[in-house]
Amino acid sequence: MPEECILLAHGDGGALTHRLVQEIFLRHFDHPALRDLTDAALLRLPEGRLAMTTDTFVVKPLFFPGGDIGKLAVAGTVNDLAVSGARPLYLTAAFILEEGFPLADLEQVVASLARTASEAGVAVVAGDTKVVERGCGDGVYINTAGVGVVAAGRDLGYHRIMPGDAILVNGTVGDHGLAILSKRAGIEFDTPVESDCATLNGLTEMLLERFPESVRFMRDPTRGGVATTLNEVAQSTGLDIILEEQDLPVREEVQGAAELLGLDPLYLANEGKVLIVAASEAVEAILAVLREHPLGRNAAAIGRVEVGTGVGQGRVFLRTPLGGHRILDMLAGDPLPRIC
Amino acid sequence: MPEECILLAHGDGGALTHRLVQEIFLRHFDHPALRDLTDAALLRLPEGRLAMTTDTFVVKPLFFPGGDIGKLAVAGTVNDLAVSGARPLYLTAAFILEEGFPLADLEQVVASLARTASEAGVAVVAGDTKVVERGCGDGVYINTAGVGVVAAGRDLGYHRIMPGDAILVNGTVGDHGLAILSKRAGIEFDTPVESDCATLNGLTEMLLERFPESVRFMRDPTRGGVATTLNEVAQSTGLDIILEEQDLPVREEVQGAAELLGLDPLYLANEGKVLIVAASEAVEAILAVLREHPLGRNAAAIGRVEVGTGVGQGRVFLRTPLGGHRILDMLAGDPLPRIC
Repeated sequence: MPEECILLAHGDGGALTHRLVQEIFLRHFDHPALRDLTDAALLRLPEGRLAMTTDTFVVKPLFFPGGDIGKLAVAGTVNDLAVSGARPLYLTAAFILEEGFPLADLEQVVASLARTASEAGVAVVAGDTKVVERGCGDGVYINTAGVGVVAAGRDLGYHRIMPGDAILVNGTVGDHGLAILSKRAGIEFDTPVESDCATLNGLTEMLLERFPESVRFMRDPTRGGVATTLNEVAQSTGLDIILEEQDLPVREEVQGAAELLGLDPLYLANEGKVLIVAASEAVEAILAVLREHPLGRNAAAIGRVEVGTGVGQGRVFLRTPLGGHRILDMLAGDPLPRIC
Repeated sequence: MPEECILLAHGDGGALTHRLVQEIFLRHFDHPALRDLTDAALLRLPEGRLAMTTDTFVVKPLFFPGGDIGKLAVAGTVNDLAVSGARPLYLTAAFILEEGFPLADLEQVVASLARTASEAGVAVVAGDTKVVERGCGDGVYINTAGVGVVAAGRDLGYHRIMPGDAILVNGTVGDHGLAILSKRAGIEFDTPVESDCATLNGLTEMLLERFPESVRFMRDPTRGGVATTLNEVAQSTGLDIILEEQDLPVREEVQGAAELLGLDPLYLANEGKVLIVAASEAVEAILAVLREHPLGRNAAAIGRVEVGTGVGQGRVFLRTPLGGHRILDMLAGDPLPRIC
């Protein structure tokens, strides 16, 4: 038993910490910068601006349909870099382990994290492990920070969004949030709902290479969902956004379960989706390219940008098939804790 | 009350999360890369190799003599970069908040983190906040990841350590560990023991500029203390290290309290100390320079490197004033949880 679970002494920086690092972490992560176990990884960077981001993952449960906290920890941070127009290169991974956490579960999480990083073409180059007492954590929390490089001349941002631009998404919305919530609530479906958890850097890099001018802005709609992310865009630009309800790709089982639980898929978290603001004349070409990619098969144009009433006042509207308009606010007072 | 403590909804990515970010984080961190609240910070890097590191801080208590978790979160990561020979430039800061944590305490921690970063000349350029339920955290945990640049031609590392080299330290050992432990145990001293928590990049940069050849290697002896850090050096190089007990700078009150608690200052954590391996002929010159620096007044040469028995087998010895030798192993089975 002592050998099979995390002990407080695994966190003291001494012999047991070293064994943990050697026997679990280094077995799964293999990068020259890690092997020396020095204080910082020394790396080479290609030309360009540095992109840097951080994200902590406290998802509950740790293992869920379509993924686990290790896969999520890579996807979340890689995607934050990718939607910024960066090519993700290096990750750090830092673990907060709760005393008593089974080493077998830790190994499964670490292996998944390592596999996802490898598939995404990013290297884990530095790490850290802390142990907290039973009841001061919940199994494992993971922080990943990432750096990437934005190629010279690449320019994405709020400042490029214009009235008339189209809003696209690479697939169905709400899958991650619903997979987590239904697993947590113990609900089973005939067709199981899986998280969309995936690394998007391959897809975004392809888009930016093919459509350097037409793609104005990208953002991944994670916590708070599509509605909250688009509210951030509207408020930051002062423009309004109109979504067409009938064009939103939502899996039938997600729609059904969301209705059952009293939730709106537009507010559910996604972990393998990107919202793309693009010049309207390029929409068909972008959709065609997206739909050829494994992570873009259900891509759709879901709305457009319109003249708004000024910075801080932009709003998001949902247009129903009957022609009515509904304001979509930012998520508020709806606690969905630990979705990522 | 709801307004004065962290609620689960502060972590949902919606309106309350946005208020928390605006009213607490952005008020203390001011960097152009942060203001847009995009997914990744875009930054310029000077020429050189990139250094990258991560560290999570779970110290208990959050506030202790000489510092707090915010100050520690900057010092720990800045120091990991500094001892690698890098000039620290950018930090990310990610918070795991426990439901019910007082916002006033959070603000105090954030202000301290921001002030320490500013004094060290590093910018906080990206952040993240997650909230976990009461009983799944302990107030606040902080992860900081950092990047810095290593100037061209600068070369520090195990490969440069040679038999005959001297071991130096910039001041008294064991202060941080003892400050935390005595605060936790409720012990009061006539002369209060303060943590040595400090950012060392000013001191290390000065040393590397003045002694580019003579300084071979640096490491900060945090968790596990001087004894564990030197064991890592000995095992990685295969060389032996001899420490002279009489030359070790230890505060009288730390020595006394450590004896009372049955602890050895050589195994206590430090958060403002650097071990320096240097060419023996430069020792006096390096000590003179260190002692002029506010963080080096009690600097001392504490030992030397000797021929060992091969990689994985290097050992650390403590030579007592009477001429006896004692093997100093890595910290083992001595759980001092949450010291940093």
